[in-house]
Amino acid sequence: MLLYHDPRAPNPRRVRIFLAEKNVAYDTIEVLIAASAHQTAEFRRKNPLALLPVLELDDGRVLRESIAICRYIEELHPEPNLFGADAWERAQIEMWNRHAELELLIPISQVFRNTNKFWEGKIKQAPDFGSIMRELVAGRFDWLEHELAQRPYLAGNRFSVADITALCAIDFGKVASIRIDAATHPALAAWHQRVSERPSTKA
Amino acid sequence: MLLYHDPRAPNPRRVRIFLAEKNVAYDTIEVLIAASAHQTAEFRRKNPLALLPVLELDDGRVLRESIAICRYIEELHPEPNLFGADAWERAQIEMWNRHAELELLIPISQVFRNTNKFWEGKIKQAPDFGSIMRELVAGRFDWLEHELAQRPYLAGNRFSVADITALCAIDFGKVASIRIDAATHPALAAWHQRVSERPSTKA
Repeated sequence: MLLYHDPRAPNPRRVRIFLAEKNVAYDTIEVLIAASAHQTAEFRRKNPLALLPVLELDDGRVLRESIAICRYIEELHPEPNLFGADAWERAQIEMWNRHAELELLIPISQVFRNTNKFWEGKIKQAPDFGSIMRELVAGRFDWLEHELAQRPYLAGNRFSVADITALCAIDFGKVASIRIDAATHPALAAWHQRVSERPSTKA
Repeated sequence: MLLYHDPRAPNPRRVRIFLAEKNVAYDTIEVLIAASAHQTAEFRRKNPLALLPVLELDDGRVLRESIAICRYIEELHPEPNLFGADAWERAQIEMWNRHAELELLIPISQVFRNTNKFWEGKIKQAPDFGSIMRELVAGRFDWLEHELAQRPYLAGNRFSVADITALCAIDFGKVASIRIDAATHPALAAWHQRVSERPSTKA
């Protein structure tokens, strides 16, 4: 199994943490976005959308897209369970994983894309939209503070894929000066520390 | 079972089509975004994010978020199968459902939010970002034309939740003057007609 990834991008990191939690071995090929390696004709044959990560199976089949890869790994390696053990828990984890993606990862990525010098001259940027998303993320941190004051993990009493998504989103926020303030958001900061202490997060 | 929805919004439509495909009965409460009904304190008790749809079960439990709702319905009513029948098909459908959401529904929604008079004075808009997303969607239509020239449905030879997401995205595009041109995108137009002919799409 071969993972095409960029060590600094948040979506490949979701998959690396997931694979580490599952204790699954795999090989990697680095596709560095900073070097525009994801834009080459060679990589576009793996993914015409020029996005990371991509998983290539030993038989040559290819899966694009972080969560599709994680779900497939969960099917092949059901334990430890990260997507839910029964219908209601699976629904809760799906809801929280989607909240983490739609309310954190995508907005934070848009702050980075639309305001950071890294992308200048590489993509069209709309700084106004970056500001709008920065404000949205601040509000979402307040909401999460309230939620995480009530339970240790996003979707309940145990770690799940939703925590992986939220961790990768918030850690990626550093590139856009988005950080948790433990003084104002103690429950969110405690959750962040709890999750960051897992060895998988170094993957 | 009670669905809080707006008849004109794309995410509630995904769930209505899904429920119609499953032939599941449910009651509805309209929460009209145009009247800011999603912003009331009463609705925020159902969903603090003030987003639609929300599903309320008979025992009072609440599920926010369109795809979490669809997955839960799939678990309770497995047939007709819309998320995949084995591990690889489930991975393919997940990949295509996420492509439909990340590459079509979210960008199209952002064109609408950032450029349409409907939102003037209600949210902060960034018209530049709307233009960037409009250009992205045009490129994604070209990509889909190539993909749908090879098979009848997004994820393969049969209808799935990915087609529901893509249909709701593209139909919603009308509010932002985004439409399929059958002259330049015949396979995409044929797919759109094929899916639109399903009775569920009127739900």
